[in-house]
Amino acid sequence: MTTLLPIRTERQGLLEVTDQIVNWADAQAVRVGLLTVFCRHTSASLLIQENSAAAVRRDLEGYFTRIAPEDPTAYEHDDEGPDDMPAHIRTALTQVQLSIPISKGRLALGTWQGIYLFEHRRRPQARTLALHLLGE
Amino acid sequence: MTTLLPIRTERQGLLEVTDQIVNWADAQAVRVGLLTVFCRHTSASLLIQENSAAAVRRDLEGYFTRIAPEDPTAYEHDDEGPDDMPAHIRTALTQVQLSIPISKGRLALGTWQGIYLFEHRRRPQARTLALHLLGE
Amino acid sequence: MTTLLPIRTERQGLLEVTDQIVNWADAQAVRVGLLTVFCRHTSASLLIQENSAAAVRRDLEGYFTRIAPEDPTAYEHDDEGPDDMPAHIRTALTQVQLSIPISKGRLALGTWQGIYLFEHRRRPQARTLALHLLGE
Repeated sequence: MTTLLPIRTERQGLLEVTDQIVNWADAQAVRVGLLTVFCRHTSASLLIQENSAAAVRRDLEGYFTRIAPEDPTAYEHDDEGPDDMPAHIRTALTQVQLSIPISKGRLALGTWQGIYLFEHRRRPQARTLALHLLGE
Repeated sequence: MTTLLPIRTERQGLLEVTDQIVNWADAQAVRVGLLTVFCRHTSASLLIQENSAAAVRRDLEGYFTRIAPEDPTAYEHDDEGPDDMPAHIRTALTQVQLSIPISKGRLALGTWQGIYLFEHRRRPQARTLALHLLGE
Repeated sequence: MTTLLPIRTERQGLLEVTDQIVNWADAQAVRVGLLTVFCRHTSASLLIQENSAAAVRRDLEGYFTRIAPEDPTAYEHDDEGPDDMPAHIRTALTQVQLSIPISKGRLALGTWQGIYLFEHRRRPQARTLALHLLGE
């Protein structure tokens, strides 16, 4: 089974999408299988991270801002604004795809793991995740 | 087929887990398929890397220590000790999931590729990998 | 279905391999499925990135050169030349595996996404990608 999951991002940073993904997977009623989440963009990415302390997410956002800063002098590409090239770099440093096993009808996420869409652009964006589920 | 593979880590750094994973996959006797390894944690991750020179692994460990250092002044989150927030960052920079094709009954790993659990916390931890295998 | 896709790299940097991968996938005539690309090396990796502006790729190459520089004083491992240890690090920071859903007979790549083999060694190399496709 496949579907496209539209996600509206309102700001730069980590947006939890665990519920939308789990809800779709649950509706397919698979007992054993594999769920794949694929981000169809080059300036937003995926991350599985701590779903408890909000400070962890703020620190992660701060880290990627420091390690791949907005700095027009550092990059040749600036057609789409100063946040675009850092967005491509932050995407390259994280993931565009995640596959998660399903066992006993549940995604094998750890207790503290949430699935996040990492928006790297400053302005709100319409993003799409492609989901694929196999199993029985 | 799915299973949970418990791994005890004794120290920070790269711990090879290729044999445990290959042994389980081999026991399923799949000729053509896909093996997925999923790390159920946010302060440990997965890496496929050089299985020959130990110096490569020491240099990799040193690199991630430098690029995401323990530095209480750099992070807001410090509830779980100074090694926790760097652990989340090092996890974000590497992988929590790997899928490896199987052909002619063998994982398609390259000659020099080993599968490593990358423990980012200082103290020993009980970790669990979720494995999923499909094929025939 | 599985195959091995040989790729000759002529230089360090991003080499687009979308066409070779899409051509093989299309030939299998799968309507709904999942394609996995696996890089069998530890000094070359995979990246899905912008397929339009060449400046984006030059900036990405420049970024990884800066963040993991050739610097013999920084690494213990130098048996294979000064470009080898940075190659392992750049591989660790990017991906060795990508899985892409297929829907309505087409890979779910976004409009601006291309699949790249990221060669991290300076000299030409013979690389191999393992491809796996499941579906119907």
